This record gives sequence, structure tokens and C-alpha cells, in this order.
Amino acid sequence: MTLIKTVKQIREEIKKRVNEKEISIGFVPTMGYLHEGHLSLIERARKENDLVVVSVFVNPAQFAPNEDFDSYPRNIERDYRLAIDFGADIVFAPDVDEMYGENSLTFVNVEGELTRKLCGKSRPTFFRGVTTVLAKLFNIINPTNAYFGQKDAQQVAVVRKMVEDLHYDINIISCPLVREHDGLALSSRNVYLNDEERNQALILSKSLFAAKEMFLNGEKNVHKLKQFIVDNIKSQNLADIDYVEIVDANTLEDVEIIEKTVLIAVAVNFGKTRLIDNIYLEVDNVIEYA
Amino acid sequence: MTLIKTVKQIREEIKKRVNEKEISIGFVPTMGYLHEGHLSLIERARKENDLVVVSVFVNPAQFAPNEDFDSYPRNIERDYRLAIDFGADIVFAPDVDEMYGENSLTFVNVEGELTRKLCGKSRPTFFRGVTTVLAKLFNIINPTNAYFGQKDAQQVAVVRKMVEDLHYDINIISCPLVREHDGLALSSRNVYLNDEERNQALILSKSLFAAKEMFLNGEKNVHKLKQFIVDNIKSQNLADIDYVEIVDANTLEDVEIIEKTVLIAVAVNFGKTRLIDNIYLEVDNVIEYA
Repeated sequence: MTLIKTVKQIREEIKKRVNEKEISIGFVPTMGYLHEGHLSLIERARKENDLVVVSVFVNPAQFAPNEDFDSYPRNIERDYRLAIDFGADIVFAPDVDEMYGENSLTFVNVEGELTRKLCGKSRPTFFRGVTTVLAKLFNIINPTNAYFGQKDAQQVAVVRKMVEDLHYDINIISCPLVREHDGLALSSRNVYLNDEERNQALILSKSLFAAKEMFLNGEKNVHKLKQFIVDNIKSQNLADIDYVEIVDANTLEDVEIIEKTVLIAVAVNFGKTRLIDNIYLEVDNVIEYA
Repeated sequence: MTLIKTVKQIREEIKKRVNEKEISIGFVPTMGYLHEGHLSLIERARKENDLVVVSVFVNPAQFAPNEDFDSYPRNIERDYRLAIDFGADIVFAPDVDEMYGENSLTFVNVEGELTRKLCGKSRPTFFRGVTTVLAKLFNIINPTNAYFGQKDAQQVAVVRKMVEDLHYDINIISCPLVREHDGLALSSRNVYLNDEERNQALILSKSLFAAKEMFLNGEKNVHKLKQFIVDNIKSQNLADIDYVEIVDANTLEDVEIIEKTVLIAVAVNFGKTRLIDNIYLEVDNVIEYA
């Protein structure tokens, strides 16, 4: 049980533990300020691996200059304690210099629609930042299994594509979105919300659940479902919609009539806080969506 | 001693051999049509590693549409035999589909001057292709040491930067350029040259050697040395200069007066064949240039 801050040290620590046995390494990459969503990933990693590594790193490359890199909530002591309590063996918390050096010029990018739509539209360099830092972390940790929350459904799809294309020998495992009791999707950014914003933000999960209900009652028309959600969200005066999209759960391609499992994904600003949420509408058995 | 064509198979083969011992893996990535330059890399890898893997893969991503991907010389049977004779344990020769799948969208790119100057100027997507395929190969092979020829000095610098930035745990080892007895730098592309072109191409090494002589006799002025080389090359009527550059051996940054070790690098077209050559002018001890 160790908090490690340098690449050299974590390599040595992992080598020492991997030693001469074949052991599986479960990896949970996070930006810290851990909530129950993260903790569910750590618990799952603990069940499925010999060694569990959690990284805590607020990654500058995935923030645009106008975004909240500086104010993103941080508390490494609390994160360390939580991660260990929930089953981590090692917490890797490098500083920015350790990961990016003085002049890091190498970027990993998944091109095409997958990174251009949904969150990619309003955050055009976001996924490039995510895939770049994950390439670094994967090369440092050499995980067997890496765990991601389905809350970031597009991120999971992008990471799967990167891992497939670059032939990383890593299983990408996506785990269910975790919500507060009133339905708000857990996010480290929820601490930004004032009471009124938080209250109005409940419209996201409410409208997604209601849309699912409509779908289960037979509505297959994507346009109608989207319009329903948009109208619902707009009933809240603080909600500023970035997108409401319904896409193929595997490819994230647009659909018009729901014939395969789809993802409904929304991004909405409340004041200065951008929230995302999503839900799957399942058709048949799709094993590994997002 | 095995020729392997799939990612799955080579992973299994390497795992089987690495087994439970800690062994070093030497990796020599090539585009095949092996010449003595490649073979010197394989010999060196053999001396320094427990397991030697040679890849033979003509990488489409590093050819522009107008370049010679289709006509690039190939002879996998000969390459396999040579690689094994010179010490390879495994030859990995995947086809394009195996490496890129149906729709590979992930690219690794080193940004900035390093990939924009010299060969990057006339081949703007070349290094992106090189770093992308190397990321794939590194993730498949997991080498301890990877061997590159100093003939491709800029490539070595770019790969070093990628490995550093992405935290690959791989030593990049660059080995001396190998020449024919008459001075022509070995290249798989030399087979394209007709007799007259080949004869005139000797001007490259001749002018580089002559410039080195001038340097050893006290000439430190980069402009004068460049002009001397340009004039020499232009004496050959089939020579069409792409660039003649003198740059810092470590950073590839431009210099005006030679105070640290520099690289003289040239690229010249003879007919349809683009040749490169280079030489170092050494000042003090620079341990790990290019």
C-alpha cells in the first residue's frame, strides 16, 4: 500500500510485485476527488486482479484553456485513503512535470467522427488529451485490465478504439454509471453546483428515465425522444443545453429508428458547470457497448 | 526460429519464451529487403539480448499517396533467411490488415519542428506514420531495446522523443550508418537506381566526407559548409536537391557556427529515387546524439 509520485518508482514497484509470477494488474485511471463511481471501479478491479493500481492525475491536456483545470477539485490525502480502503494496492499520483516533462510533444489521437461528435464538438481537444495521457499511463503501468465508468460513454468508446488500433494488450472494462439517491449522476464536478443548480440538474436523469419509459412503451422514433428530452430540460431556466443525442451504443453513429441498443447522451451547462449524463435503451443482447 | 504473421501468435510466442524468467527482448523494426545496415542492427541486438525479434512490414502510413508504397521492394523469404542467419529468433511479418485492421483511426504524432524540418518538409505525414506503426509494434513486442540505423538520423530523434514523451520503457539504440565500398549509403531503395543515377549518387557521400575534411581543417561556418555541399551535388546533372542541412546533433535545431556536435543531413532525388545521407561532425563527447 503505497503512494507513488514518480514513473521510475512505480515501474520498480510493479516489477518487484510482478516479480517472477504471472499476475494480473487492474488499473483505474482517475482525476481524483474520488466519488462512489470511482470506488465501484476500484472494488471491481480488486475482485478481478492480483494487483490494483489507481492513478490520480488531473490531466492538463484534456482541458481547454477556458476550462476548469485550475479549479478542478483536488484532495490527494482523501483520495489515497479511499482508494486503499476500497482495495487499491498502489496509488500513483504524479505531478504534471512527471507525466509531461518540460516539453512533451507527442500526442495520441483517435481521428474521425468518434472524437468529433457529442463531447468532441464543444471540446475539440478533449479526447486527444485523454488518449495521450492514457497511452502514457498504459505504458507505465502495463495493466491487464483497465476500468472506466459508463458515465463517460464516449470516452470508453474512444479508449476501446485506441487500444484496438494501437494493439495494446489491455482489456477495457466499462462499469455502470453510479447516481446519487435522487438520480444525479456522480461527478467530481458536482461540488461546483449551488443548491438551485443542483436542484435543476435533476432534470437530466429525470428526462432520461422518462424517455426510457417512452421507449419501453413502444416509442422507437429518435427525433421524438430527443425532442421530448430537450423540451424537458428546457423547462429548467438555468439549463443551457450543449447536446442531446441518441446514437448507436457500439459505434456512436447517428440512428433515426431504434432497432439496436442505443445510448442517449446529454451534456448541459448549469451556470459554469458542464454536466453529462446518459442511459442505454437496450435491444437484444449487446455484450460490450461503449 | 519462427516466421509469425499475426499479433495473437507473436504475443503468445513471446509470452511463452519470456515465460517466468526475466529476459531482455531486442527488437529491430524494418521494412524488409534487408541490407547490411539492417543486418548490423540484428547482429548488435543478438549480442545484447536474450530474445531477438525482427519485424518486416512495409508501413503504408509512412508513404504519401504519390510515393513508392506499391513498388517498394519486398522479398520476405530472403529477409526471413537473412534475419535468422544473423541472429533473429522471431521474424514478425504481419500484413497491412493485421496491423491496421479495417479502419485504424488512431495516430501517434510528435508535433513541433522536430517532425516538420528536414525530411518532414517534403514528407509531412511521414513521421506520423513511423511513430504510429512503432507504437503498435512496441505494444505488441514489448521490447527492452529497439535498434535503429543512424542513416535515418531524424527518425531516431523522433522515435527517442516519442518514447520519452509516452513513457515507453524501451532503450532506443542507434547504430552507425553502413555504406557500400564506394561510399553509397545502404538503402533498400538503391535498387531503383540505374547505373548512371547510382554513379552520380556517389556525390552525396563524397561531398559529406569533403565537408568533414574542411571542418577538421578548421571551417566552423555552417553557411560555407552547406554552400560547398550544395555546389558539389549540383555538379551532377541528375541530382535534384531536396535539402542540405547542418543541425545540432541532439536537438536537430539549426546552428550557424559549429560549437557542438552537428549532423549534416542531405536528401537528394536522382530520377524517381529519393536518397538520404548524413554524417556527424563531432565536438567534445556527445554520448547519445540522434
